[in-house]
Amino acid sequence: MPVESREIRLVSRPIGEATLNNFAFASVDVPDPGPGEVLVRNICMSVDPYMRGRMNEGKSYVPCFQIGKPLEGGAVGRVVASGDEKFPVGTFVLSMYGWREAYVAPAAHLQALDTTLARPSAYLGVLGVTGLTAWVGLFRIARLNDGETVFISGGAGAVGSAACQMAKMHGCRVLASAGSAEKVAYLKTDLKVDYAFNYLDGPPLEHLKQGAPSGLHVYFDNTAGPQLEAALYALVNRGRVVLCGGIAGYDKPVPGPRNLNQAVGKRLRLEGFIVSDHFKEMPAFLAEMAPALKSGKLTSRETFVDGLEAAPAAFLDILHPGAPNIGKMIVRLSD
Amino acid sequence: MPVESREIRLVSRPIGEATLNNFAFASVDVPDPGPGEVLVRNICMSVDPYMRGRMNEGKSYVPCFQIGKPLEGGAVGRVVASGDEKFPVGTFVLSMYGWREAYVAPAAHLQALDTTLARPSAYLGVLGVTGLTAWVGLFRIARLNDGETVFISGGAGAVGSAACQMAKMHGCRVLASAGSAEKVAYLKTDLKVDYAFNYLDGPPLEHLKQGAPSGLHVYFDNTAGPQLEAALYALVNRGRVVLCGGIAGYDKPVPGPRNLNQAVGKRLRLEGFIVSDHFKEMPAFLAEMAPALKSGKLTSRETFVDGLEAAPAAFLDILHPGAPNIGKMIVRLSD
Repeated sequence: MPVESREIRLVSRPIGEATLNNFAFASVDVPDPGPGEVLVRNICMSVDPYMRGRMNEGKSYVPCFQIGKPLEGGAVGRVVASGDEKFPVGTFVLSMYGWREAYVAPAAHLQALDTTLARPSAYLGVLGVTGLTAWVGLFRIARLNDGETVFISGGAGAVGSAACQMAKMHGCRVLASAGSAEKVAYLKTDLKVDYAFNYLDGPPLEHLKQGAPSGLHVYFDNTAGPQLEAALYALVNRGRVVLCGGIAGYDKPVPGPRNLNQAVGKRLRLEGFIVSDHFKEMPAFLAEMAPALKSGKLTSRETFVDGLEAAPAAFLDILHPGAPNIGKMIVRLSD
Repeated sequence: MPVESREIRLVSRPIGEATLNNFAFASVDVPDPGPGEVLVRNICMSVDPYMRGRMNEGKSYVPCFQIGKPLEGGAVGRVVASGDEKFPVGTFVLSMYGWREAYVAPAAHLQALDTTLARPSAYLGVLGVTGLTAWVGLFRIARLNDGETVFISGGAGAVGSAACQMAKMHGCRVLASAGSAEKVAYLKTDLKVDYAFNYLDGPPLEHLKQGAPSGLHVYFDNTAGPQLEAALYALVNRGRVVLCGGIAGYDKPVPGPRNLNQAVGKRLRLEGFIVSDHFKEMPAFLAEMAPALKSGKLTSRETFVDGLEAAPAAFLDILHPGAPNIGKMIVRLSD
């Protein structure tokens, strides 16, 4: 029996800042699953900064969203009708069929989840692509060594809060920034970072000097802008910068660091990465992080909004300074 | 018998742009060499952009020049009196005792040169630290592969012209920029680069698109500024940027690239280096490049000025757009 589902479509591409007008709601009938297919009702979906890039025309590292088509993104759901015996009704699945309440898809496109390890939403956050992003950035791109000093901008966000915890688990000295007093308190109290500061509260370089008098080995950049410039000054010889996402420049170009020549004298390496290149590392990542989550060494903080109708605003919120989320922003779609 | 020598001293540190007023001449008596020492009369000396950084106060990757003391830098000379039997009179030697006509030094500080391989000044240029800089940047930092496409800014300068030729020797497609019609002609005719352009002649990105329609694998940055920004756009996935020296920013900070977020989606790596970290590679470098120079596959173009009194102006010239030198700037001190 077909199921009615609402979905969110892209109706126009942003010119400068993305707005609610770029999105529209539609209702569709989801058909019964054919052989090898399953019908899934989503429980929760992810909104992520990288999606801003997919709203633009043109080639990027992921195909752009299509006008008139539903958006895509990470989602966890549960099989409600199955044409594949390996995915019986009740199976929890991870997919890229976000931004919709229900869908039919080939079971081969989905990943069955073990919900005894963690609650479903964790697979969108610290145990999912978000967590893998932090892990790959720290340990594969920056090649962070135990005991080094690392600065993580956007430290209270989804990737940042995972990175802070993983670096602490490796005995590192962690500095982190955020944009509100509440987030700074979260960094200090919950994540136990060594030095947390509000990046709007004085020059970032003064904070970096205070929090890391001997300098930084690694900077994990989630913001670009003035914090990147300050970090280039604060890095020691052979320091590394992980370019994870310059959120400050998603809507419009931002001035680049005026001190990139620091990279010559200090032999710095700056390197960007895309987490999907590293999906083969997911088992190694889960082998380390799933037990850490179960034991409480790693925590999964989420900020929830409810209902598909809340998704566009929740997405736009995480793009801007003063984003309301602490940890991963999750849109709950059903229980 | 002591020898009279003139030398050039630093008398003040530049505030902004370096000027002739920062330098002063002095005459000194150079004593006879003691045991293990040699007295050397310099034949020629090097002026290099990196010396601008040494004029500033403060720590850098090389110690700063001292006020009231002679400057230092690469020089080739000939032993005129010897207290070390391994360095008999007549030996050609490479040293860091530039900016002076003659000096006494421990023979252990000097490197004897084989002038049957190349003329003495080549050891300040393509067979010296200049050539090693190009070679390390291309093959150790960028890890340039045969057949790739590389863009070299400042292509007619000392390091740039060496890099252009080495990349061509490796079957690469080479794009290079310079700041005058004469230099562009040199790049095309003498160095046989595939696409040469004047960086003042229209947007650099248009030139890069025309010269490399499929994009760049490597950018060898000698300039920073707008050419770096253009190159970030033109690089392909997993492109590499060698940060060799942002000459545009030596006197004053220059705006950084506004598009560093290109490094995320395209997984770019930007890396700075200091050639002195790689001096142990000198034998491997010479094993490849000395025969190439002897056979004519590698050419050593130099621009000469004569006499110690010409050195400060020659040095200041190479720091600025429209520098007069093609290839290595050499100050001749004696025959």
